[in-house]
Amino acid sequence: MQLNPPLSLHQVAGMIGASFDGEPGFPISGINEIHMVNEGDLTFVDHPKYYEKALKSKASAIIINKEMDRPDGKALIFSDDPFRDFVSLIKKFRPFEPATGMISSTAIIGKGTIIQPGVFIGNHVVIGRNCIIHPNVTIYDHTIIGDHVIIHSGAVIGSDGLYFKRRSSHYDKLESGGRALIEDYVEIGACCTIDRGSTGDTTIGQGTKFDNHIHIGHDTIIGKNCLFAAQVGVAGCVIVEDDVILWGQVGVQKDLTIGKGAVVFGQSGISKSLEGGKTYFGSPAQEAREAMKQMALIRKLPELFEKL
Amino acid sequence: MQLNPPLSLHQVAGMIGASFDGEPGFPISGINEIHMVNEGDLTFVDHPKYYEKALKSKASAIIINKEMDRPDGKALIFSDDPFRDFVSLIKKFRPFEPATGMISSTAIIGKGTIIQPGVFIGNHVVIGRNCIIHPNVTIYDHTIIGDHVIIHSGAVIGSDGLYFKRRSSHYDKLESGGRALIEDYVEIGACCTIDRGSTGDTTIGQGTKFDNHIHIGHDTIIGKNCLFAAQVGVAGCVIVEDDVILWGQVGVQKDLTIGKGAVVFGQSGISKSLEGGKTYFGSPAQEAREAMKQMALIRKLPELFEKL
Amino acid sequence: MQLNPPLSLHQVAGMIGASFDGEPGFPISGINEIHMVNEGDLTFVDHPKYYEKALKSKASAIIINKEMDRPDGKALIFSDDPFRDFVSLIKKFRPFEPATGMISSTAIIGKGTIIQPGVFIGNHVVIGRNCIIHPNVTIYDHTIIGDHVIIHSGAVIGSDGLYFKRRSSHYDKLESGGRALIEDYVEIGACCTIDRGSTGDTTIGQGTKFDNHIHIGHDTIIGKNCLFAAQVGVAGCVIVEDDVILWGQVGVQKDLTIGKGAVVFGQSGISKSLEGGKTYFGSPAQEAREAMKQMALIRKLPELFEKL
Repeated sequence: MQLNPPLSLHQVAGMIGASFDGEPGFPISGINEIHMVNEGDLTFVDHPKYYEKALKSKASAIIINKEMDRPDGKALIFSDDPFRDFVSLIKKFRPFEPATGMISSTAIIGKGTIIQPGVFIGNHVVIGRNCIIHPNVTIYDHTIIGDHVIIHSGAVIGSDGLYFKRRSSHYDKLESGGRALIEDYVEIGACCTIDRGSTGDTTIGQGTKFDNHIHIGHDTIIGKNCLFAAQVGVAGCVIVEDDVILWGQVGVQKDLTIGKGAVVFGQSGISKSLEGGKTYFGSPAQEAREAMKQMALIRKLPELFEKL
Repeated sequence: MQLNPPLSLHQVAGMIGASFDGEPGFPISGINEIHMVNEGDLTFVDHPKYYEKALKSKASAIIINKEMDRPDGKALIFSDDPFRDFVSLIKKFRPFEPATGMISSTAIIGKGTIIQPGVFIGNHVVIGRNCIIHPNVTIYDHTIIGDHVIIHSGAVIGSDGLYFKRRSSHYDKLESGGRALIEDYVEIGACCTIDRGSTGDTTIGQGTKFDNHIHIGHDTIIGKNCLFAAQVGVAGCVIVEDDVILWGQVGVQKDLTIGKGAVVFGQSGISKSLEGGKTYFGSPAQEAREAMKQMALIRKLPELFEKL
Repeated sequence: MQLNPPLSLHQVAGMIGASFDGEPGFPISGINEIHMVNEGDLTFVDHPKYYEKALKSKASAIIINKEMDRPDGKALIFSDDPFRDFVSLIKKFRPFEPATGMISSTAIIGKGTIIQPGVFIGNHVVIGRNCIIHPNVTIYDHTIIGDHVIIHSGAVIGSDGLYFKRRSSHYDKLESGGRALIEDYVEIGACCTIDRGSTGDTTIGQGTKFDNHIHIGHDTIIGKNCLFAAQVGVAGCVIVEDDVILWGQVGVQKDLTIGKGAVVFGQSGISKSLEGGKTYFGSPAQEAREAMKQMALIRKLPELFEKL
């Protein structure tokens, strides 16, 4: 999430009533969750396990719940509850704006694009040229869609990610302030859901084709010319490189990478990063050849046990 | 399903043209399917396998297809087709009422609640305060939603359960007469479906958070502060206690209980009740440690078979 | 896809600017993809691997990218890119017609059918008598629905199939020109998606009942009185015979047949045709008894490995 123009450290700390360590005029040009952080960004950390990671990240400013030595070139903002204060900043910069109609007057829709009936297009949405948005699609605020994109009915683009902080008696929500980006020539099947980024962008790369009922989590990046069959689910913060094929009902856990050109057979479960150019199967997924060999032997277990 | 005011045995039997055994004025205060039955309720039984269960249940009155001894304090209604007659009573007390617009004039919507465009709100729906109902959500008749609830686009709350009786040449439908109850602070992801109870209530407990594409069957009760990842499917008549975490694509069979605080890893299949406080994996699910150990050994099968 | 009236070989070849071998007046009465082809149809073949199959198919005319001997009774149309030319014919005969409102004026809706608010009904759709179409359902152009059908909210009927040709730098889409046919007494759950045929029909047989979130691929034929639980996914070109039961989250690969009366337990993965009248489990699916026995032995692997 970019701040345009940037704010000063002093201004941001003031918004959450917090003290800070750094030049008051130190510029903050973005707000990003730790997985997506870039130079100029403000992030937050509230668990000792991640202090080091945050302090060594690209973040220029960090909301933290402990007085610590400030690293060179960074600023610190002190808070007894960094999560709460980070959320309050997201809400300030990306407030929820209730709709006033099915298609927001702030949306920009390119030439040659057909919007079928029953489509909701939120505030600040941009849709390119020559797209077809089929009936009853929902496009949340701030979504960006390229040219020649087809979105089938019932699909939901830019909904909130599943990102909660467990408190003692309940969950607190990290409000989603990010976006969904759908690049040119993408086709998205009926009833697919693409969550927007927490603070960054969820991206579906150019030419990628989705069957129906696919779920893509927040901040996940899908490469170009991928092909996903129906009911695939990809968690948040995943990187799927170009030309990957996932067959039906594959599940992908968060925070991992699937290499270029990988092919994953149906119903496989991916729990760690996969090298590109290979074929996988199983839950958890292995190289298909290995998985097949093991499955053949499982069928021989009755015979084996009888023998022994 | 409560009858308010209660009807007499005589009246109810009259509605389906049936004879009965019991005081004509015996009061019937509810109609419930056998899984959900309470004192005062009328239920039905049409298979000898379940006669005993029905006669020993809390039901006060039973539609039955055999002349039997009437248990003390209960009434019997005799029918050659209890299923058909039970359905006809449900239809009488909860008739389908076609909508006259996107938001029924009989719906009650609390202060501070935002209803986005394209939302359907059926008859007799109650929605509390400070909720956000995102675009293109559907809320069927009789649904009850608490305060501070968020429902994302494409979600369907209160649709009919999958409950059919197999006849020789077709299926007959048990008309759904129950409700969906969504408690305070629940968040429901995009394209989730929560079926209403057959005659009772399907309940999502306070503070529970659902990712996208989740299915909850009829009469299932989800506890407080549960967290379900995308594409989880829970069948009907399940009890999930508080603080349960189900990761992506987990499937849960009907008529079982998942204990408080259980955690189930992605793609697991739950076919029998699980004790709380433990971690599970696999299809069918076992304790994760056991499942992991077995999976590690499966990978050694080629070596083992070669050796032997 | 039928052509009514038929066209001549000369006319069709002229539309794509191609030369041909055959009587100029040779009649072409339909256009169909190779899996669905019938006598009188034009099909295409662009890969040497399938030349023989196409030449021996029921097709009366074939667009082909090689000069070959013409089989008796057939016509050949020569093209350097049969896929491109076939797509251009589909687009000519089934052009996308943008909607002018939520219910097309060309749709025919039977007596006693209730259309709830927010339902989209495309061009040339036919819906029979005494149906209930719940809110926010989408029915694409050319869909045919019988009598006494119930479709729950969020369902999408007749969306495009997943059928792409991989080019060197992108995928090209086979435009869907087929239909979805929903026979009498079918019930379709919330958020189900039924893709239309590529050029033929996707069919849901009489009396079949679907739970929520089910996906049916293009050109698949589901028999009569089948029962599918939630989140089942069936790929394209599958034949499911009558009285089949698929429990939750079952996945079915393309181009196979499931025999009459088969029962498949939850989360199974079907990768080859299954004989009817039997019960199956596992991914890949086996007869349930075998699968259960193997699973029991897997649980004994730790003991076995310790012993050896």
